[in-house]
Amino acid sequence: MENSKKIALILSGSGVYDGTEIHEATMTMYAIVKQGGEYQTFAPDIKQHHVINHITGEEMNETRNVLIESARIARGNIKNINELVINDFDAIMFPGGFGVAKNLSDFAFKGANCTVVSEIEKVIKEAVTAKKPIGALCISPAIIARVLEGVELTIGQDEGTAKAIEAMGGRHKTTNHGDVIVDTKYKVATTPCYMLDATITDIADGAINVTKAVFEMM
Amino acid sequence: MENSKKIALILSGSGVYDGTEIHEATMTMYAIVKQGGEYQTFAPDIKQHHVINHITGEEMNETRNVLIESARIARGNIKNINELVINDFDAIMFPGGFGVAKNLSDFAFKGANCTVVSEIEKVIKEAVTAKKPIGALCISPAIIARVLEGVELTIGQDEGTAKAIEAMGGRHKTTNHGDVIVDTKYKVATTPCYMLDATITDIADGAINVTKAVFEMM
Repeated sequence: MENSKKIALILSGSGVYDGTEIHEATMTMYAIVKQGGEYQTFAPDIKQHHVINHITGEEMNETRNVLIESARIARGNIKNINELVINDFDAIMFPGGFGVAKNLSDFAFKGANCTVVSEIEKVIKEAVTAKKPIGALCISPAIIARVLEGVELTIGQDEGTAKAIEAMGGRHKTTNHGDVIVDTKYKVATTPCYMLDATITDIADGAINVTKAVFEMM
Repeated sequence: MENSKKIALILSGSGVYDGTEIHEATMTMYAIVKQGGEYQTFAPDIKQHHVINHITGEEMNETRNVLIESARIARGNIKNINELVINDFDAIMFPGGFGVAKNLSDFAFKGANCTVVSEIEKVIKEAVTAKKPIGALCISPAIIARVLEGVELTIGQDEGTAKAIEAMGGRHKTTNHGDVIVDTKYKVATTPCYMLDATITDIADGAINVTKAVFEMM
């Protein structure tokens, strides 16, 4: 598929409470291929902030690596984010999950005062400079707002998160299932997914709609 | 959704090489909800056979629990397989992944001489007795063949696996992407998914088609 569009899909672990939200990542892969594109996954080679037992919600006495755990969603086909050459891709996309707010940044702990992991910040800025669209689902718009001054986006309806985004200079729009907000200046498309109380069909709708918006901006 | 069909979705960890194949599980959940049904996930509360680094394919010096790791795919909404009361459900379904052949059974190591974990064998037999359909994706038909004498099914085109299934008394049919084999006597529907060299859209097709077949047999 020499001429198909290539999307760099950036993961943050495997599991909603300490990594990438699995359904959002899977549905984004599905949406990309359904649009006739291809994906290559990337993640940073760093320790997870922590490991959460997804039944109890409690921290486990373990350490796991973000790149190695992300490979579970990618079926092994994943690269270190350091190897991402933006000109080899037509767009970048971020599924959600707490990994975005705990591993790719410290937004879960510091809110508007968060910092984004330097490799991730670099990739977002390079995408904007190269005029490549960025798609972001669920909580991942929060790190886009930290990096791109004044970007317009959505995380759905959560007031605390929306306020933190506005405190970072972002412009938050309230949305419902499957809605997409597009910032045409930065070429950023966002959708709420599991930031709302959603079913898996809502996640498919959101992933498909935001991916379509990304493809339209290529 | 009082009257919607309820499917027990049985997981075996989280990650293709030592647990449930993540895309197959996610797409089966999606297919169930798209058909108007609901799912409840279950897994056995046992240690994983081993933990595989999904980048290198090598074993890691760790121990993980099948129920706790499966909860990552289920976003925490999972129950111990011991709590599965067959009459509360309209069907049971098994996504694939090596977890089926390493955690729910020892098929990966013993082939036709494998045994299936007793709670899983019990649930399969109870489903047949209660005339509830069973859906199985990828490698999971192998454990159905171990439990149900003479069942007709598919794992795609892999000759070694097909021979092992026939050695257990199963009748294997060769299939391609998205195909479904239905055994009307046992009410078992199977599809190959990642037992073939497949894209994620092939997995969606297979999951949707096998789920439709399961719903038609309710």
